[in-house]
Amino acid sequence: MATLLPAFTEGDLKKLTDGIRKAVEGTGCKGVVLGLSGGIDSAVVAKLCVNAIGPDKVLCVFMPSRVTPVEDYRITTDLCKKWGTEHKILDVQPAVESLTSILMATTNTPLDRGNIIARCRMIVLFNLAKKYGRLVMGTSNESETAIGYFTKFGDGACDISPLSGIYKTQIRQIAKMIGIPENIINRQPSAGLWEGQTDEGEIGMSYDVLDPILYMIKQGHSDADISNAVGVPLTVPALVRDKVKGSEHKRQLPIRL
Amino acid sequence: MATLLPAFTEGDLKKLTDGIRKAVEGTGCKGVVLGLSGGIDSAVVAKLCVNAIGPDKVLCVFMPSRVTPVEDYRITTDLCKKWGTEHKILDVQPAVESLTSILMATTNTPLDRGNIIARCRMIVLFNLAKKYGRLVMGTSNESETAIGYFTKFGDGACDISPLSGIYKTQIRQIAKMIGIPENIINRQPSAGLWEGQTDEGEIGMSYDVLDPILYMIKQGHSDADISNAVGVPLTVPALVRDKVKGSEHKRQLPIRL
Repeated sequence: MATLLPAFTEGDLKKLTDGIRKAVEGTGCKGVVLGLSGGIDSAVVAKLCVNAIGPDKVLCVFMPSRVTPVEDYRITTDLCKKWGTEHKILDVQPAVESLTSILMATTNTPLDRGNIIARCRMIVLFNLAKKYGRLVMGTSNESETAIGYFTKFGDGACDISPLSGIYKTQIRQIAKMIGIPENIINRQPSAGLWEGQTDEGEIGMSYDVLDPILYMIKQGHSDADISNAVGVPLTVPALVRDKVKGSEHKRQLPIRL
Repeated sequence: MATLLPAFTEGDLKKLTDGIRKAVEGTGCKGVVLGLSGGIDSAVVAKLCVNAIGPDKVLCVFMPSRVTPVEDYRITTDLCKKWGTEHKILDVQPAVESLTSILMATTNTPLDRGNIIARCRMIVLFNLAKKYGRLVMGTSNESETAIGYFTKFGDGACDISPLSGIYKTQIRQIAKMIGIPENIINRQPSAGLWEGQTDEGEIGMSYDVLDPILYMIKQGHSDADISNAVGVPLTVPALVRDKVKGSEHKRQLPIRL
């Protein structure tokens, strides 16, 4: 079966768009700021915000690093032009270099650098949000949030997280519903934290497999049930369950004593 | 009256120390890392950790910026030597400069720079924590947390926040109980984010006034009651209450829709 998740309906979409409008209005802020990467998730968040509060209240920030494909410049610039949103390009590479060199003595892996990039982007977004009286919109989806596939206090840090609770395969449905260009929907998902990195390669399975597993875990099904329903070996849901459990601290507030 | 808060007892101290030990052991991590600034809060957290899990499992990181007083180098180095903890000095100034220059076009205030400093320190601490399989200990106390006097995803970001729920005036009691040197206890509290900055100057009142007000707000008392009990004009508890309410988002997870 393609997916065990319920399809995302027009009603769900209206609820989501209204939710964004109400959340922004509820804070009294003047609009939103978000990192627009060229991938599907941030494109969906940006377009949802445009639909919810109008393009003049949406600031899209493109924050390339050394490993950002040139293509992403063009894609994000085209989107902002098309939507009529404000658009900034801020190269975070010098800050990433600087932090990497401060921490050099202890050897940085590509993953360490990836975390530094994600956190530098957070700094840029919150700085702009403060300056312009805006909110930072997060772009993390439920699939990556549930398995902890994000940087704590990096891309996971935001004021409003509209895609929490919405799985990647559902986001592809939303993208089609709100007119995100096909070339963005069909791109290989990548956090863009190092060259050649793909989400599905790192996670070890496709979102088409991950999403129904995560959904069934949430519904309380056993590994055996999930294995049968999704058509994967028993070890796969067990692995996903471990990822969910092991990353719990990334989704919670700091431990208080 | 000096304070309306209950005194911090030896029993409370034992509970706190045991809590740190259990929380660290519960995660299976090898120890903790924290930013040691030369101020009372981080000195108390470091010493509590030394008492709870042993000095060999405590890594203290001193992260000076351009505005850090030279005195802080000496104080933190002496503390680490005395306790036998590991000690690193990592100058975050180059990263702060780099981020400030990336964001320059939009003019950075001292407060903006302060937020950048706090968030660069967060990046350093989480990088080291990941490398050494450790947890980041937060050093925010209840007084500053309650009024939002911290940087979201900066000094507010950590894995364990042992001083949440403990007011600044109580931390002075703890400091005496666990042998923090008098010169540290008596220093003017400062986040050290710009020259001449003092916490009490920025907050607009002393912790001796702020703490009982916060405590009474939490207990559900009216502004009139608080004004009477603490001996301040009615406008003061009202102002504190506004700060508590206005900073709620800084103490919570991102809004989900």
